[in-house]
Amino acid sequence: MRFDILTLFPEMFESVFSYGIIKRALDNSIIDINSYNIRDFSEDKFNRVDDYPYGGGPGMVLQPQPIYKALKSIDIEGGTPVIYVTPAGTPFTQKKAEEFASKKRLVILSGHYEGVDERIVENCVTDEVSIGDFVMSGGEIPAMAIIDAVARLLPGVLGNLNSTCDESFNNNILEYPQYTRPYSFKGMEVPDILLSGNHAEIYKWRRQQSLERSFFRRPELIKKANLNDQDKKYISQLKRYGKEGKNGLGK
Amino acid sequence: MRFDILTLFPEMFESVFSYGIIKRALDNSIIDINSYNIRDFSEDKFNRVDDYPYGGGPGMVLQPQPIYKALKSIDIEGGTPVIYVTPAGTPFTQKKAEEFASKKRLVILSGHYEGVDERIVENCVTDEVSIGDFVMSGGEIPAMAIIDAVARLLPGVLGNLNSTCDESFNNNILEYPQYTRPYSFKGMEVPDILLSGNHAEIYKWRRQQSLERSFFRRPELIKKANLNDQDKKYISQLKRYGKEGKNGLGK
Repeated sequence: MRFDILTLFPEMFESVFSYGIIKRALDNSIIDINSYNIRDFSEDKFNRVDDYPYGGGPGMVLQPQPIYKALKSIDIEGGTPVIYVTPAGTPFTQKKAEEFASKKRLVILSGHYEGVDERIVENCVTDEVSIGDFVMSGGEIPAMAIIDAVARLLPGVLGNLNSTCDESFNNNILEYPQYTRPYSFKGMEVPDILLSGNHAEIYKWRRQQSLERSFFRRPELIKKANLNDQDKKYISQLKRYGKEGKNGLGK
Repeated sequence: MRFDILTLFPEMFESVFSYGIIKRALDNSIIDINSYNIRDFSEDKFNRVDDYPYGGGPGMVLQPQPIYKALKSIDIEGGTPVIYVTPAGTPFTQKKAEEFASKKRLVILSGHYEGVDERIVENCVTDEVSIGDFVMSGGEIPAMAIIDAVARLLPGVLGNLNSTCDESFNNNILEYPQYTRPYSFKGMEVPDILLSGNHAEIYKWRRQQSLERSFFRRPELIKKANLNDQDKKYISQLKRYGKEGKNGLGK
C-alpha cells in the first residue's frame, strides 16, 4: 500500500516511521510512504503558502495554489482516497480504518494554521476526517494516527493474525482488562477466574468486564453493539449500580 | 508545564518535538518534556517487560513491575494526572485538554501490545483516555496528540490569543469553511459575502455554514450545542435537505 503525505513539516514524521510497526511495514515493503513539502510547490517568489482569511478572523489559511500543484504532481488514480485531516471532518473510526486498508493507495493532506482554502477541500478531497473532538496545531499527528491504524490492518504487519480480531471497536464494545505475571504484585492478585483453566467461564467474565466498561464509559457506543440475551441481562443488572466496579459485578 | 512520558519507544517522539508548536513551547521553556524508557526499569535479567495474558488470548501484556518502578522513580505529586492512553478509555475531548492544560504536570503512560496489566491501571492511573474509536499499535502517537492539544492551550504558545477561542468544539459546533487569496482560482471564486465588508452578514453566513456542517456531519455533537432561536430556525430548514450543500442553503 502506498501513502502520500502532503505537509508543511515532512521532517516531523521521520522518527515515527523509524520505530514500531510502521517501520516494520516499511522494511517488509508492505507499505511505501512518500512525503511532499507543500512549500516546494508554491509559485510565490518567497515560497509563501498561506494568507489571511477572506471575511476576517484570526490565523492564516493555506492557499489553494501550492496544494493543487502538489496534488497534480503526484498523479492520483481514480478511486484513491484523498484524505484531509480536520476537526470539522467526520470521525475517523475503526470501520473507516478498515475501509482505507482495502485501498491500494491513500493520499493524506495535513493542514495547518486555520485550515485549508475550501476550494481545495471541495474539489480535490474525497474524505474529511477528524481523529477526535479536540484541536491540534496541525494535521501531522492525526496523519500519523491514520497511517498507524491502517498499516497495522494490512496482512503481514502484525505478527499474530488474531490480534486484530479480538479488540475494541470491532464489536462496539471496549476491551476487557488484561493481567500478566507475576500472579501477586505488591499484594494485588490476578482474578482467580483467569487461572481456572475454564475457558467458558473466562470468556463470560471477560465479556462482562467489557460490557461493564462500555456501559459506564461509552454508553453511546454500547447502543450500537450486537448484544445477546445474556449480555442484555447483565446490562440490566449494571443499571442498578451507579459506577464501574473494580473487579466486576458480584466480586 | 512538565510532561513525563513512559514509553517503550522514547525515540519515536524525537522529530515531533523538533518541529512546530511543541518545539516552540520547548524553546520558550513553556513546557518541559521528559521521556522514560519503561524497559530501563525492568528487574528481569533480560530486561523483559511483557508476558502472556492470564486466561489466554493473543498478544502480550506489559508487566506491572517495570511501570511501577518507573512511576515511583519520577516522584509524582498528589493531584498530578497519570494518563493511560488506551482505546478502552473515556474520550479525550477539548474539554479534557483544557482540564489538563490547567495542571502543572502531566504523566502519560503509552501502552503497547495488548495493553498494560490492570493492577497498574487500577492503582497508579488517574485518567484512562482514548483519542478515538480506532486501534493503533501503541500509545505513542496518542500521547503526541494529547501533548500537542494541551501545549497549544498554554499562554504564550500560539502567537494569536484569539486563535483558540473561535474554533471547533469550544461550542460543540464545527468550524466554518475558510477562503484566502487568490479571489479566483481555476475558475472557482470566493463566496461574495466574505468580500462584502458587512461583518454582521459574514458572521451570519459563517454561523450557518458551521451549523450546516455540524448538522450533517456530527448530529450527536450539535445536540450538545448552545443554540439560539435563529440557529434553531436555520436547522429546521436544513432538516428538509437530505445532505450538506456546497455553499450553504439558498445559494
